[in-house]
Amino acid sequence: MSVPAARRVDDAGGPGMQMLREIAEQPAVLRALTTHADAYAGAAEEARRRNATTVRLVGHGSSDNAASFAVYAFGLLSGWTAFRDSISLLVYYGSDVDLRGSTVVALSQSGRTPDVVEYVQRARARGAFTIAITNDPCSALAEAADTALPLAAGQEHAVAATKTYTAQLGALALLAACAGHRRSEVVDGMHEVADLIDASVPELEPKTAALARTLRSVDRLFAVGRGPDFATAREISLKLLETCRVAAEPLTATDLSHGPVAAMDVSFALWAIASRDASLPTVQEAVVRAAGTGANVIVSGTAADEVAAADHRLPVPAPSLPVLAPLLSVVPGQLFARALAIVKGLDPDRPSGLTKVTLVP
Amino acid sequence: MSVPAARRVDDAGGPGMQMLREIAEQPAVLRALTTHADAYAGAAEEARRRNATTVRLVGHGSSDNAASFAVYAFGLLSGWTAFRDSISLLVYYGSDVDLRGSTVVALSQSGRTPDVVEYVQRARARGAFTIAITNDPCSALAEAADTALPLAAGQEHAVAATKTYTAQLGALALLAACAGHRRSEVVDGMHEVADLIDASVPELEPKTAALARTLRSVDRLFAVGRGPDFATAREISLKLLETCRVAAEPLTATDLSHGPVAAMDVSFALWAIASRDASLPTVQEAVVRAAGTGANVIVSGTAADEVAAADHRLPVPAPSLPVLAPLLSVVPGQLFARALAIVKGLDPDRPSGLTKVTLVP
Repeated sequence: MSVPAARRVDDAGGPGMQMLREIAEQPAVLRALTTHADAYAGAAEEARRRNATTVRLVGHGSSDNAASFAVYAFGLLSGWTAFRDSISLLVYYGSDVDLRGSTVVALSQSGRTPDVVEYVQRARARGAFTIAITNDPCSALAEAADTALPLAAGQEHAVAATKTYTAQLGALALLAACAGHRRSEVVDGMHEVADLIDASVPELEPKTAALARTLRSVDRLFAVGRGPDFATAREISLKLLETCRVAAEPLTATDLSHGPVAAMDVSFALWAIASRDASLPTVQEAVVRAAGTGANVIVSGTAADEVAAADHRLPVPAPSLPVLAPLLSVVPGQLFARALAIVKGLDPDRPSGLTKVTLVP
Repeated sequence: MSVPAARRVDDAGGPGMQMLREIAEQPAVLRALTTHADAYAGAAEEARRRNATTVRLVGHGSSDNAASFAVYAFGLLSGWTAFRDSISLLVYYGSDVDLRGSTVVALSQSGRTPDVVEYVQRARARGAFTIAITNDPCSALAEAADTALPLAAGQEHAVAATKTYTAQLGALALLAACAGHRRSEVVDGMHEVADLIDASVPELEPKTAALARTLRSVDRLFAVGRGPDFATAREISLKLLETCRVAAEPLTATDLSHGPVAAMDVSFALWAIASRDASLPTVQEAVVRAAGTGANVIVSGTAADEVAAADHRLPVPAPSLPVLAPLLSVVPGQLFARALAIVKGLDPDRPSGLTKVTLVP
């Protein structure tokens, strides 16, 4: 680790270059995904035909974070109830639950996560309509489900997921939009978001690199959001944990204020995702309380500039369709996690102890 | 803070005595709760009559942790689908979702959590059958719901919830049991659990105090469990965070192995809840992986003695009904959080910055 951090950030073939390249590929991935809108519309139509309008989401890690977003995508775009289902209830405990009337949406980039595959097999046998969203159309998960929808993100080389996460958000928004007969609105929205990410990355990259140098000693952090951007708080926490060894915990803004804020002091940082929507007051309240403890406060999101108590701000432009904000608001967190890893002398492309596909039980 | 830690642990009127008293009161609270079984059976009967067998759980903090348990209590005791619903979707975003066919179970010790009260009002207006489980039968929450069920835990003086959390677990088990026509089995099981807690506390208290002295410098920790005891991992994390300022994050055992284990090193600790049930292999796998990083590993739960790679073990006896294990397995965590706070010179009865009732938006 003798190369100075400042040089390594700009080292074209050096640590974190795969991750940076894949962050920058996200707009192209979102545009490519919209060309598969017919397949998504077909799956939504089949769910409607079966009257399977209760959506059960399953996945681990980033896929589970994307599932948090889907709760809002379905709730706001189609009025369908979606929730992150317990995998173990079906897989380990053999729960006797009736799944007719349910659509399962299983998320796995590799399509090889064992308990997700097994959940889909069991749920299908119990009457659920099962959809796999995966980057590998030949995977075990794609085989197990009634329908496999393409993630179309291309191969991801960095171990930390970035473009496959935003592709999952896009896929879930598209599926929810088709369920709610709002397909063209969301396809247009995804193109707009792609353009906004393209415009934002060149500005955010040096800004997050500078912030990473300022915050190099942070090792305990809460990330808060609410509504659709709670998923963003979860995903930014996971990136910071996996690539930078920061003990980062995601909480809804209200849950932070409800208790854990009492644990905060100058040794903690808060990352708040402030979105220009109805949940903004809860995030502002959490920021004020956290700032009062002396914690270092970073605010990102479409309403970052509206939060007075922040020490650092990483705003992103607001898309026309507010529910799509998470596709944009994760980007500053991805870039910051990459930059902080480099400052800490770690390689964000290959965090030690992590492999791309997890085959644990 | 001039009183030596060792003396303060035994100081009858000193820091943490309210919390210790309330931990010890848990068996009496569970026994008292069973005397209200008729009310719980009536609510379950009404849910069945309305065909409202999809259970939406809402609450914050410890109440939300109890809701995690209810997912399994309903899944295993009645075969009903239960999930932790998004509060903000209904309260802030005005989602247009059909709630006929749903039973809402709202959890709030005080009955005064604003967005939980508002969620219940809105859900009731949209056709849900609404049940409040609260310690205050005259609270706004009790008023807002179709039916209020007593928590019957008596007043809780320590700010950190202990007996009201186990009372919520007992209440949810009782409701799920009544839904599944297994009332007497669960009532008997709660009496057995009460006896087992009574027998365990005198042994666990000095053991957790000694362990707290050994682990006094821990400030970053993951807590893992799976199935019903994922709730225990969440609740132990929250206790450690609120009373000891430990950055404690709960994860399912599989989610830890899927990524965050990469962040672990000697500066982290792992608290695993190992239960003697079908999910045990996933917990054992997570422990082995975490131990390999050099992290300090504490294992509690009914199968703590079956996990070879642990540095420290805090086993609890196994109840006859495995789904009730979380009522017992939280106790070592409560006692440890109290003891660690005292070792750190903090008062677990009154963590700075926390109040008993949270009235944030």
